[in-house]
Amino acid sequence: MPVLVMKFGGTSVATLDRIRRAAKRVGVEVAKGYEVIVIVSAMSGKTNELVGWVNETSPMYDAREYDAIVSSGENVTAGLMALTLQEMDVPARSWQGWQVPVKTTSAHSAARIEEIPTDNINAKFAQGMKVAIVAGFQGVSPEGRITTLGRGGSDTTAVAFAAAFEAERCDIYTDVDGVYTTDPRVEAKARKLDKISFEEMLELASLGAKVLQTRSVELAMRYKVKLRVLSSFEEQTDDAGTLVCDEEEIMESNVVAGVAFSREEAKMTLVSVADRPGIAALIFTALSDAGVNVDMIVQNISEEGRTDMTWSCPVDQVARAKQAMDDAKSSEVINYSDLLADTDVAKVSVVGIGMRSHTGVAAKMFQVLSNEGINIQVITTSEIKISVLINRKYMELAVQALHDAFELDKAA
Amino acid sequence: MPVLVMKFGGTSVATLDRIRRAAKRVGVEVAKGYEVIVIVSAMSGKTNELVGWVNETSPMYDAREYDAIVSSGENVTAGLMALTLQEMDVPARSWQGWQVPVKTTSAHSAARIEEIPTDNINAKFAQGMKVAIVAGFQGVSPEGRITTLGRGGSDTTAVAFAAAFEAERCDIYTDVDGVYTTDPRVEAKARKLDKISFEEMLELASLGAKVLQTRSVELAMRYKVKLRVLSSFEEQTDDAGTLVCDEEEIMESNVVAGVAFSREEAKMTLVSVADRPGIAALIFTALSDAGVNVDMIVQNISEEGRTDMTWSCPVDQVARAKQAMDDAKSSEVINYSDLLADTDVAKVSVVGIGMRSHTGVAAKMFQVLSNEGINIQVITTSEIKISVLINRKYMELAVQALHDAFELDKAA
Repeated sequence: MPVLVMKFGGTSVATLDRIRRAAKRVGVEVAKGYEVIVIVSAMSGKTNELVGWVNETSPMYDAREYDAIVSSGENVTAGLMALTLQEMDVPARSWQGWQVPVKTTSAHSAARIEEIPTDNINAKFAQGMKVAIVAGFQGVSPEGRITTLGRGGSDTTAVAFAAAFEAERCDIYTDVDGVYTTDPRVEAKARKLDKISFEEMLELASLGAKVLQTRSVELAMRYKVKLRVLSSFEEQTDDAGTLVCDEEEIMESNVVAGVAFSREEAKMTLVSVADRPGIAALIFTALSDAGVNVDMIVQNISEEGRTDMTWSCPVDQVARAKQAMDDAKSSEVINYSDLLADTDVAKVSVVGIGMRSHTGVAAKMFQVLSNEGINIQVITTSEIKISVLINRKYMELAVQALHDAFELDKAA
Repeated sequence: MPVLVMKFGGTSVATLDRIRRAAKRVGVEVAKGYEVIVIVSAMSGKTNELVGWVNETSPMYDAREYDAIVSSGENVTAGLMALTLQEMDVPARSWQGWQVPVKTTSAHSAARIEEIPTDNINAKFAQGMKVAIVAGFQGVSPEGRITTLGRGGSDTTAVAFAAAFEAERCDIYTDVDGVYTTDPRVEAKARKLDKISFEEMLELASLGAKVLQTRSVELAMRYKVKLRVLSSFEEQTDDAGTLVCDEEEIMESNVVAGVAFSREEAKMTLVSVADRPGIAALIFTALSDAGVNVDMIVQNISEEGRTDMTWSCPVDQVARAKQAMDDAKSSEVINYSDLLADTDVAKVSVVGIGMRSHTGVAAKMFQVLSNEGINIQVITTSEIKISVLINRKYMELAVQALHDAFELDKAA
């Protein structure tokens, strides 16, 4: 029988009523003849409660204990979902990560899935079980300790199961009804996309469109897992939501698929760094070691052996970055005169595979921003996206102006 | 190094502050030179929340899913306790039941511990770990599914670990400072016992004195585990609490050690059962299969081939018992005219090893109740206890009158 993977996020299982609603969706797919693997998150708010306790108990916590604690929320949902399906006379049982087992690396709190054996669950399917409910976000390390995949990791669990079981599709149920050209809270004319390519989704996901975890999209792209994002709060139809798929499956598309943004950015500049070969590697290794996720990087032209180095990172990592640079200076690894931090910036990006064949997207973007009097502080580009860092107060204006200019409210 | 087992119940770990207080107690014992195994319950209220969800989702739940769900609370406490000890620079780590592994039978929600391998934890002790924190109440079945030992099962976990690791003592930290002659909330003159025999404790535990789970006392008696019950809310002294020990270690004791009671009892009567050899076995097998914990049993004298069968069970199992009897009737296994349920009764018992050598305890008990105008509905006795079922509204009166009559406020 064909296998379908269905993933329900925290808001989709926030209460017993919502779990029932999700279970009904599962029942519909079972009735169509699927064997279903359901991946569940913790009930909305539960993981945050657990994380709060950990932080209060031990600010520099042992990640192994953190994982053992925060993974418990998913276990509860998995059991409740199994019971709900059983009440509907659908043969179902729950699995915790270690029971499958979802084998991961030992990188606690940021583990990567290495293997998902299918025999255990397939044996139960062969015995007539129709639904396997698996606690998302968790696995087990080679040492036999519980690991977690990082926040939002249940999406990754879902895609990994879809790949391992060669599922026909992986449906991600969430609190939005699909992927939009931009956030409808910022631009009312934002339009839901019926299809989007893996590449575009990847850029949107990593740029702050919080629909799917980046790694889950990477994984789906690698294993050609058809991914559908849809709402658990609306009636299900066969073409509901947004299908994330191979570029080839999309007949027509706009040059630009969407406008993404990230509000909580900071721009940091290391002023008058003693420039020498390898200095960039030193700086960014130090930042990386300190757990700072550097995004954009700009280096000014070097004069008289000194240069300015600018990067962006999430606002809440500024303190950590400062500490890392202070340490590097006092240990004489890096020599610089000053470190500036502007915590009042935002990133706005346009994304689209059409950029590969269409020129002038960047020029148009800069012109639109210029027309609105918005100063561009940093620019980065990839094959299918252009990102700019701007003053945060212009973020909404920039998103709206770009959405309009690229006519994203109109289908291709 | 000598091993000490310390068990902290739900109220003793109800908040992060209380977990810290418990961790300090553990630290004191580590400083004395013990290797400590800490057994933790779920934070107070958490298990009830989970059980509530299960019951709301599926009144006739699959016990395997129930176990997977309700065991999650203990995992959270175990991790938090490990982090708290680590913050105090005490080397500690948490274990979930399946990680030890605590091997149990497959009797979900009422599993029995079959084996606790010590190698895993001892290897860590050998590496310098001082405290192993184990999630109580849970284990793993031969099929690899999570089991639980029944409510209060963390006591049993603690005693089983004390036996497996040949611990010097098993300290049960709870919200009361020891074992009393009766519940002080019902009888203000109730007195704390310094020592009590395993046998008496067993009767008190099974009769509803909620200090220790019955099976934990049985296990302690079988493996000669010295058990101490003490409060986690008072300063610790060497003779704090109540020591549960062998009869031989108690020099003098009252004939009656205590008065126990159980409020939420129900009396059920199967009216006019077709009587034939083996009918009792049929009835009580059916009830047992339905998960009804039958306590007292009375059979009326059989007349003309028909008899009445009366039993008591917890109030919340009445629906299940009715269902089992209905099923047995419709499948023509048991023939009866009516099933009556009186959910308005309570059980009161007097317990004491002194009864073995002193006669007249039963007569005195019945006289005391008669003097108060309390009608006795069912009587059962054992070597060291006498129990009666009475109308619930007289329960407190009966306990007070018996406590007075047997002079339990005075030490032997």
